[in-house]
Amino acid sequence: MLDLAFRPAPRPAGPVYRQLADWLHAEIAAGRIGAGQKLPASRDLADALGIGRNTVTRAYEMLLERGDVRAHVGQGTFVTPPPGAPARGAAPRGFAWNGLLSRSSRATTLPAAFRTAARPGARYDFRPGQVDRASLPSGALQRAFQRAIDRRLRALAADSDPLGFAPLREAIADSVASRGIACGADDVLVVAGAQQAIDLVARVLVDPGEAVVVEQPGYFGATLALAAREAGLIGVGVDADGLRTGELARILRSRRVKLVFTTPAVQSPTGVVLSDARRAELLALADEHQVPVVEDDYDGELRLGGPPMPALKTLDRAGQVIYVGTFSKALLPGLRLGYVVADRPLLSRLALARVAAGLQGAVVTEAAVAELLRSGALERHVRALRRRHRERRDLLLAALEACLPRGARVVPPAGGTSVHVTLPGLVDAEALEQEARARGVAYLRGDAFHFDGQGRESLVLSFANTFPDEIQAGAERLGQAVRKVLAASPARRTSRTRRSRS
Amino acid sequence: MLDLAFRPAPRPAGPVYRQLADWLHAEIAAGRIGAGQKLPASRDLADALGIGRNTVTRAYEMLLERGDVRAHVGQGTFVTPPPGAPARGAAPRGFAWNGLLSRSSRATTLPAAFRTAARPGARYDFRPGQVDRASLPSGALQRAFQRAIDRRLRALAADSDPLGFAPLREAIADSVASRGIACGADDVLVVAGAQQAIDLVARVLVDPGEAVVVEQPGYFGATLALAAREAGLIGVGVDADGLRTGELARILRSRRVKLVFTTPAVQSPTGVVLSDARRAELLALADEHQVPVVEDDYDGELRLGGPPMPALKTLDRAGQVIYVGTFSKALLPGLRLGYVVADRPLLSRLALARVAAGLQGAVVTEAAVAELLRSGALERHVRALRRRHRERRDLLLAALEACLPRGARVVPPAGGTSVHVTLPGLVDAEALEQEARARGVAYLRGDAFHFDGQGRESLVLSFANTFPDEIQAGAERLGQAVRKVLAASPARRTSRTRRSRS
Repeated sequence: MLDLAFRPAPRPAGPVYRQLADWLHAEIAAGRIGAGQKLPASRDLADALGIGRNTVTRAYEMLLERGDVRAHVGQGTFVTPPPGAPARGAAPRGFAWNGLLSRSSRATTLPAAFRTAARPGARYDFRPGQVDRASLPSGALQRAFQRAIDRRLRALAADSDPLGFAPLREAIADSVASRGIACGADDVLVVAGAQQAIDLVARVLVDPGEAVVVEQPGYFGATLALAAREAGLIGVGVDADGLRTGELARILRSRRVKLVFTTPAVQSPTGVVLSDARRAELLALADEHQVPVVEDDYDGELRLGGPPMPALKTLDRAGQVIYVGTFSKALLPGLRLGYVVADRPLLSRLALARVAAGLQGAVVTEAAVAELLRSGALERHVRALRRRHRERRDLLLAALEACLPRGARVVPPAGGTSVHVTLPGLVDAEALEQEARARGVAYLRGDAFHFDGQGRESLVLSFANTFPDEIQAGAERLGQAVRKVLAASPARRTSRTRRSRS
Repeated sequence: MLDLAFRPAPRPAGPVYRQLADWLHAEIAAGRIGAGQKLPASRDLADALGIGRNTVTRAYEMLLERGDVRAHVGQGTFVTPPPGAPARGAAPRGFAWNGLLSRSSRATTLPAAFRTAARPGARYDFRPGQVDRASLPSGALQRAFQRAIDRRLRALAADSDPLGFAPLREAIADSVASRGIACGADDVLVVAGAQQAIDLVARVLVDPGEAVVVEQPGYFGATLALAAREAGLIGVGVDADGLRTGELARILRSRRVKLVFTTPAVQSPTGVVLSDARRAELLALADEHQVPVVEDDYDGELRLGGPPMPALKTLDRAGQVIYVGTFSKALLPGLRLGYVVADRPLLSRLALARVAAGLQGAVVTEAAVAELLRSGALERHVRALRRRHRERRDLLLAALEACLPRGARVVPPAGGTSVHVTLPGLVDAEALEQEARARGVAYLRGDAFHFDGQGRESLVLSFANTFPDEIQAGAERLGQAVRKVLAASPARRTSRTRRSRS
């Protein structure tokens, strides 16, 4: 397999097949893909890049026409030796990593939607996963690190607690009480963000090939960690009441499932809340089939309405709910701090897996965040964030309502910082993304939240890092882009168009 | 499998089999091991605890005598229902995690030696993995975090670089020049410590069941990460010239090996340097068999003699050496910061695996350490550390020479902060550890550095966190403990006794 450093170009640069052909041509010309090397099968390359197989086939055809490659029936497509070069040995020396990659590494690919989304610099930046950079608690963070280092450094340099800095675990145990969870410091494991929590759970409970249920659409980070663990992913749909437990019931009856991953408080990315009835059904099913459930409460503190529903964990009688929380949203992702509240036998296994994955926690950061919790600075910051988020959410919902064409469905989120938009009918997701970017608007394509390439008719927009005066202008420009692409799309008049607007 | 929360008791508390029996008895009495539950096979429990199978068998016999369990021939050992209790359903409700654990989790066990070593509070603390707590650069660290947050926080909260904070990668690229490595910032991946580096390499290059060569004795963290990846570990011995490449050659000829892990600069834990000739042989073998080599240069900056040998990576023509460095020794482990210098195609795979394992790096810490490198504070600290380490190493070597019985072999380490001691003949490692602890002396047993329970005749002592005036007194007390246990050991008069003292 080639190293897939290919990225669609920053600016509209013609069709993707031509971009791919140009990139391969340049790689071959530079000798980075050596003479005689076999190109990946078109299906494999298409899967790896998250583009259509036809796109790859057309790119290969262009290379054939240019004489860059030769096709041998039944064998594949091979790079042509440059004129006058010997057929072998011309390629520069390099270690053949691709032949050595593990199945896990080959299974670890980000959805294609991230390729373009990774580019910063949009004037109207609605990409999820950000925090409001204008209101970071920079002074409080400085003081917290200063106090932690000043008072605690010698202790922090000594033996570390396998579950994490004890005062932080105590503060977390106190803080999850606001989510209805009654637990002590020894029921808490501090980890490097919710992503590490999910990864450790996958390591400890999932063997390669075992089935895991995830929400579809669902949090891409969970999908990525589970795919890296070579889990067999099974998607269960989401409606206005959250995860469809009826669908889950059918799956659990038909096959052994090792784990269910869910975001009950604020479904990622749709923003819906798992209803009371569904919560009861989910836990009854998990109990009946003895399946652990990961509750990713990533936005538990950032509710936008009234008092939120208590955590799913509060209904957990048998101890099979693994509660995951994070400081990435309330502070910033770059602190890398999250936690797990779970049954102690599991917690000790997770802690041991963490030793294998990284020896110990980042105690200096743990002590600083403990300081932020102790001083009340974090709570004040979160209160201010909630006000700001509510205002921006309402602005964005109103602006989308005004600017998107009829038939677009916008779900008001219960919490979090994102709005999920479903466009009427299928659109060319890449074309829309390019049109929006050309107008200075960045968002994340819905297919980033599907492991099977679905969701291309939807967009996810975050209001966390967008100033109020940018929201209206950004939505207008997005509306222009949507109209332009819908006008060019044959799908806009199909029966798939939905007129509902919740 | 039971949750193995069993730890040998803090104080001398009788033989291990009795401790184990007492612990199991208490667990059964408390209902944590329920009536009717099957105890693990003695071989499995012995492996999991790193103790002898006979110890487990004797513990089970005690439980049988006490009536706690019943043995059914061909079926196993089962917990007896308490008097008057119904045979089923009496155990408190709990989720059956043990039946759900992955093979990886079951393969992830710390050597038994860590159980006692984990206890802090020894008066003479020679346990490895520590830093000198009396000379931590606390002021410089405070200023570094302050400046990083003050000047960089908005940028740090924005898109993170998949390879890590760019100014830190630049500073690392500059700094590894002192190890002879010429590379740019884009050849560097910043990770959460050397342990994460090894874990990511294992994820990307090793499939479960594949063979990996490690040094024996060797760094336990590498063994743990590779065992968690379900690698088939193959130990290659170490002598005064480092890894025995002849042994490695025979293994590589007989079977496919996926990875070789080595610590060439300062072998962990013996402290020997891999010789020039062996370096050339190692790379020739790796090249011939197309095997990547992990060079863990964990103590590269902390050399104690003259200018160190350049890194193995400097001899690497094909790009197959994966160089791993860390700030855990020069600063403190609780910062969790390390790095990989490797071929870019591999680096991008490692970066993607890191997204799955934890989304991104801890950029606030990365920026603070970049600040420490930029300001020269880290270099000044490391220079002072080297002086201090040299002095303490010499004191410890002299004290051990004076206090240990003849026949003990003490290797003067080329760098790092540990001294490897081999006692004459086999001793009861647990008894020696208890005798030493009773005299206030803590160290790490040699079997912590073996994945197969070997190494029980050796000890590893660190001088990093021991004051000069403690070193002599600690060595004297250790000598007393050694003499007492050797006197009780039938092995001391066997032919295994070595009189060499290098």
